[in-house]
Amino acid sequence: MGWLVSEENFDKSKIELFGSKFCIGNGNFGYRGTLEEYGKEQLCALTLSEIYDDNGCGWREPVNMPNPFHINLSVGGGNISVLGSNVAKHEQSLDIKHGIHSRNTTFVTGSGSRVSVSSERFASMAAPELIAEKYMLSADSDIDIVMNAGPDMDVWDINGPHFNVIRSESSGGNTDNHFLIETIEKKYQVSMCVSYLVQTGCDYKQDGNQYTIHLTKDDSFLLTTYAVITKGIHCADPFAESRAKCECFAGKGFDQVLKEHEAVIEKRWRSYDIEIEGDPYAQLAVRYSIYLLLIAAPFHTEGIAIPARGLSGQVYKGAMFWDTEIYMLQMFLFEEPEIAKNLVMYRVKHLKEALEKAAEFGYEGAFYPWESQETGKDGCTLYNLTDIFTGRKMRTYFRDKQIHISPDVVFGLYKYMEITGDYSILLQGGTEVILECARFLYSYSYFKKSRNRYELLDVTGADEYHERVNNNAYTNYMAKMALKCAVDTRAYMEKNHKAEWDSIVKKLKFEDDLAHIDEMHRLIYTPAPGKDGVIEQFDGYFKEEDLSVRELYSRRIKENEYLGSLCGLAVNTQILKQADVVLMMSLRPDQFTKEEKRANWDYYEKRTEHGSSLSTCIYALLAAEIDEKTYAYDYMMKAATIDLVGNYKLYLGDLYIGGTHPAANGGTWMVTVLGFGGLRVNADGVSFVPDLPDSWNSMSYHFACRGYEADCKLTKTTMTLHLTGQKKSGFLFNIGGKTYEMTDDSITVNY
Amino acid sequence: MGWLVSEENFDKSKIELFGSKFCIGNGNFGYRGTLEEYGKEQLCALTLSEIYDDNGCGWREPVNMPNPFHINLSVGGGNISVLGSNVAKHEQSLDIKHGIHSRNTTFVTGSGSRVSVSSERFASMAAPELIAEKYMLSADSDIDIVMNAGPDMDVWDINGPHFNVIRSESSGGNTDNHFLIETIEKKYQVSMCVSYLVQTGCDYKQDGNQYTIHLTKDDSFLLTTYAVITKGIHCADPFAESRAKCECFAGKGFDQVLKEHEAVIEKRWRSYDIEIEGDPYAQLAVRYSIYLLLIAAPFHTEGIAIPARGLSGQVYKGAMFWDTEIYMLQMFLFEEPEIAKNLVMYRVKHLKEALEKAAEFGYEGAFYPWESQETGKDGCTLYNLTDIFTGRKMRTYFRDKQIHISPDVVFGLYKYMEITGDYSILLQGGTEVILECARFLYSYSYFKKSRNRYELLDVTGADEYHERVNNNAYTNYMAKMALKCAVDTRAYMEKNHKAEWDSIVKKLKFEDDLAHIDEMHRLIYTPAPGKDGVIEQFDGYFKEEDLSVRELYSRRIKENEYLGSLCGLAVNTQILKQADVVLMMSLRPDQFTKEEKRANWDYYEKRTEHGSSLSTCIYALLAAEIDEKTYAYDYMMKAATIDLVGNYKLYLGDLYIGGTHPAANGGTWMVTVLGFGGLRVNADGVSFVPDLPDSWNSMSYHFACRGYEADCKLTKTTMTLHLTGQKKSGFLFNIGGKTYEMTDDSITVNY
Repeated sequence: MGWLVSEENFDKSKIELFGSKFCIGNGNFGYRGTLEEYGKEQLCALTLSEIYDDNGCGWREPVNMPNPFHINLSVGGGNISVLGSNVAKHEQSLDIKHGIHSRNTTFVTGSGSRVSVSSERFASMAAPELIAEKYMLSADSDIDIVMNAGPDMDVWDINGPHFNVIRSESSGGNTDNHFLIETIEKKYQVSMCVSYLVQTGCDYKQDGNQYTIHLTKDDSFLLTTYAVITKGIHCADPFAESRAKCECFAGKGFDQVLKEHEAVIEKRWRSYDIEIEGDPYAQLAVRYSIYLLLIAAPFHTEGIAIPARGLSGQVYKGAMFWDTEIYMLQMFLFEEPEIAKNLVMYRVKHLKEALEKAAEFGYEGAFYPWESQETGKDGCTLYNLTDIFTGRKMRTYFRDKQIHISPDVVFGLYKYMEITGDYSILLQGGTEVILECARFLYSYSYFKKSRNRYELLDVTGADEYHERVNNNAYTNYMAKMALKCAVDTRAYMEKNHKAEWDSIVKKLKFEDDLAHIDEMHRLIYTPAPGKDGVIEQFDGYFKEEDLSVRELYSRRIKENEYLGSLCGLAVNTQILKQADVVLMMSLRPDQFTKEEKRANWDYYEKRTEHGSSLSTCIYALLAAEIDEKTYAYDYMMKAATIDLVGNYKLYLGDLYIGGTHPAANGGTWMVTVLGFGGLRVNADGVSFVPDLPDSWNSMSYHFACRGYEADCKLTKTTMTLHLTGQKKSGFLFNIGGKTYEMTDDSITVNY
Repeated sequence: MGWLVSEENFDKSKIELFGSKFCIGNGNFGYRGTLEEYGKEQLCALTLSEIYDDNGCGWREPVNMPNPFHINLSVGGGNISVLGSNVAKHEQSLDIKHGIHSRNTTFVTGSGSRVSVSSERFASMAAPELIAEKYMLSADSDIDIVMNAGPDMDVWDINGPHFNVIRSESSGGNTDNHFLIETIEKKYQVSMCVSYLVQTGCDYKQDGNQYTIHLTKDDSFLLTTYAVITKGIHCADPFAESRAKCECFAGKGFDQVLKEHEAVIEKRWRSYDIEIEGDPYAQLAVRYSIYLLLIAAPFHTEGIAIPARGLSGQVYKGAMFWDTEIYMLQMFLFEEPEIAKNLVMYRVKHLKEALEKAAEFGYEGAFYPWESQETGKDGCTLYNLTDIFTGRKMRTYFRDKQIHISPDVVFGLYKYMEITGDYSILLQGGTEVILECARFLYSYSYFKKSRNRYELLDVTGADEYHERVNNNAYTNYMAKMALKCAVDTRAYMEKNHKAEWDSIVKKLKFEDDLAHIDEMHRLIYTPAPGKDGVIEQFDGYFKEEDLSVRELYSRRIKENEYLGSLCGLAVNTQILKQADVVLMMSLRPDQFTKEEKRANWDYYEKRTEHGSSLSTCIYALLAAEIDEKTYAYDYMMKAATIDLVGNYKLYLGDLYIGGTHPAANGGTWMVTVLGFGGLRVNADGVSFVPDLPDSWNSMSYHFACRGYEADCKLTKTTMTLHLTGQKKSGFLFNIGGKTYEMTDDSITVNY
């Protein structure tokens, strides 16, 4: 129970949605939830992580590989496909516990025969090069079927094509099922080798990739496909490697490779799963959210983070944003810190490109990109959207004004150290990142003499409907946090690693900057709550037109018109795209009173469009903190079900933005564990302020913190902790205002 | 010769243009160059200065009075009008020497008779309440004509109506020809009294405002109309006053009141005229430019300046802009300093509103309005234009980001003192204006610590196609000038008027600000010329797209689309609306080398659209300085003929902006006298660097400077100066690098 996502009947209008909803993946690549008979028009995609290309059109995006599972069926010359045939029965499902996609379809042919197609596929978490599928044909009467099963080389691209096939071979009777592609821009090589193995009692004839089958009602026709994708960035000879591995996996057989995969994903679930009793839909939605992160996270490399649409396609250029640090990182930090470290190290690895970006705009220090790919460069152009009224490219300020990305990156490092207790990352490049981000903030800032304070001008904060504003609350508070982190890092390093510190300061020529950063940390302006407790989102925000989202919508001329940029409908109003002040408060919960949080939640909630999938989870998280359980639950469920229900915008202007939503998925985890579970880590240790939704009888989850590992089960009145890791002694926690030190493996307390 | 603007034949498409081109006025009001048979559809307007109204729609504009000269003619029930009748001959003309508008039209009636209409009208400069007209009807055969002559109460308004008639009387057999109106918003009262006097040998019958005339071929029918407009702001009982004055003027008779008017305008021309030999068209264009300023300038009051479209209608809200200080003031300073003082005192008078505007945006000091009317408040809304693609109001930044207006106002005061040598204005409110403008600049500024300089961020400079930029060259240089003026004012006042100074400093609570302003004057950033001598118009300007105006135009979807605002086509390009750096250089000529001026002229000229009528004269002025005589002449002629030819934009988006162009008119004077004449005033006295256009044999003009008055005649090789005022001794001037002191009334030098 609570592990199966399933849909019955075929609905053409849902092809695009289900492609995302039934996605599988393993961090190395994703594979959309499409059916074997689909082509590029149905957005089939095997989307690679780490491999991006710009074919010269100026729009870099991840590379989609040919589709190894493409199958064309025909009976008597007519196609058998959900797209055109008589479908008697159809079911598509995803077993998220095991990461297995299935389809079961029964067609009625022109002659009245019933032909059934079923398949199972998975992207191996044990062998990240492998994706495999078992495809079965059966019929209720004897029938001749022609099947074409071979890689579909005609791939879906938003701005393709992205590669040339530079080598191709055949094997096992199949043609061109082993090939090497080379991308256009960077000449990345990726090889795919596909084995198609038949198992059947029926008569059939193979001619290359075509199988002419005399299917009988007693025998089915089983095709097992093993596709191995090897990247030149990970091995010396991807072409040879893909074939060797493919033969090896095919040799093991489907059941065995599936078993190995299941062992890994089940192990992951032992860390990541959250069990909820009493609310089956929330149970499914929360697990599904976690699943979507597990199939997109870079378990195999620290070279990359999690794209804004996971690996569900090429949307948003397959780029990584600040979502990683702010929305996704905490789940990994509490469940599998090594993976969290991969995510953080992606930023450390690309400090150089952040320095270059700052220099591009005339600043010092590290200006981390708004969206970046494997190169670490900002992938955003200065004209990133199109005005749908004039068809003109619009000057957008995502790239050059969202300076909060640098403090967000520091926040990720800070959270890493806070939750894991592992400061060694400071010696692995973390210190340099923190110092250069602080230097960037100083370089970007202006000093207002008449007010004796540093200000951050002309920025875009979390709320993207208000670009180019002054002293955005989110940005300034995050900047202050980052500056404090720099000051604290200095203290820590001088105390514990003096030689390394001196060497870093010298290397970065940071001697003069230390005083600047110290002063800026003290004097940076962070807008304080007003008399009513509300913090103004930016200078002058309260003077903007105050109206309802409904009223704003009534002014739209086209439904998909972008409300932001410089001339959008929301720009000169108080309507937010997404949480900004509220996000800031939810990230820095100790800095504000409950009354202040409530005042800001109340004020901004009614003015938020939630035009970004990053919004609802944050309103849920802060609602949980201010005891607004109903709101918290409702908003959490909006976030948790976004990819189940498909309740998201498909277009920004004329830009397609469909796919899965890892930020909302990570936000769902945060609301559940940090919000309802009330888990918090601070200088003194771990504390809990649990407050489960009314419908939840209990919630169980696992977490790791500063070397401890624990299973935690919450009921409405009790919490049971069970230490599961090697480190046991001295675990302190606080609940209900009382501090406990565990003396046994387990403890149950009333709260 | 060179005094007559004349057009033959009737062309319906030119009604709007000729309404502006043949305008008359006297500073108290303007009257468009329309014909007697026109109504509001033909934009008839008697536009008042000083009286503005907003009827509740949010758009304040000057009040148009009823038209006293409206005449309807009919023969046999059919109208006689250029709009519908058979016009055999038609001429409309303007005698600019005497400020007299004439029309002569011959109609052919249905029966073949020829009926001639001729009229002469003038707005009295001797009696600014008076506008009078002589209207004559004649025919080549006997004919019965019905004439309706009475005030047309149905006035043209852009956003009217603006008044109620609260009292009305009849006199002289005419009905409702004496009335009192009251404006809607501020209840201003204005009265008009009109006398219609007939002189004829023909039989006619008057019934109220209708005259049934039996016109014979031997006798003409003459109607003389005296209209007196009295404003409640200038007299206690405008209703009684208009009648009394009207009776008085009618009693004097047309010839007498015209004579009194001519005496005044002729006297003005003795100061203002520029005589050019060898180039009749330039002669006419230069005189016409001066004429347009003379009919719009506030000779009668210091309460107002010159609106951006003169008194030719309600366009641009009849508001006053920085054009006054930067484009028009110098002519008055050199010709009639008392009138220049009126213009300057308009700003002094409205310091309070400038302080209030600064406070409105959270600043200290005086933030002078972008456009203002009789109240001194900024008349510009935050949504001043409409997007023609969506029909939505656009957030514009004219009001809140054009901070250069405050230094422009200081520039006006500075020029007043420099040219007149009269510092007493500092004791009449000038000091307060200068200090408060400096305080505003300090308050607006930010300090960049890493560069040890003050910057002006988020401003719109002279070039309005680039809004919200940082460190606009025009703005920063003008700000530095204003700060220097404040520093110099302090020195002057402390030395010469210590008690008054101390009292002002105390009154303004300026003690702490003195040091700020001194420091900011030293440390304000003014972008220096680069290696190629070019000054970057604002931070990042050189990175914007570099293309031709032609290429930009080719991207237009609609011809009248506004190229600026935040999303216009020019915004992210290097195309300027109007001179910015070049304007700054032409105002501060001593601060740059000729090479630098040339480099900037060359760079920016090809990138300037001249989308503002403020642009060409400035390119002419700087071209004259860098010895580009052909360019100087061509650009000067563009500016000088703008209102003759009608070569200007009629629409900004969907906003009508037709009318006369006083800034271009004033700019024409500057190019002629300051550019070609090379007249310059500096600390050492007057200097001349004459360089006449090739086609000009000579140029003669008058000027006043620091108490001296002189006639100056330039030929290609000689300059003759003749001192005409009372002050004669000690007049020093420099020409061709040599300094002369006049010992006689006249001197002729070769240069």
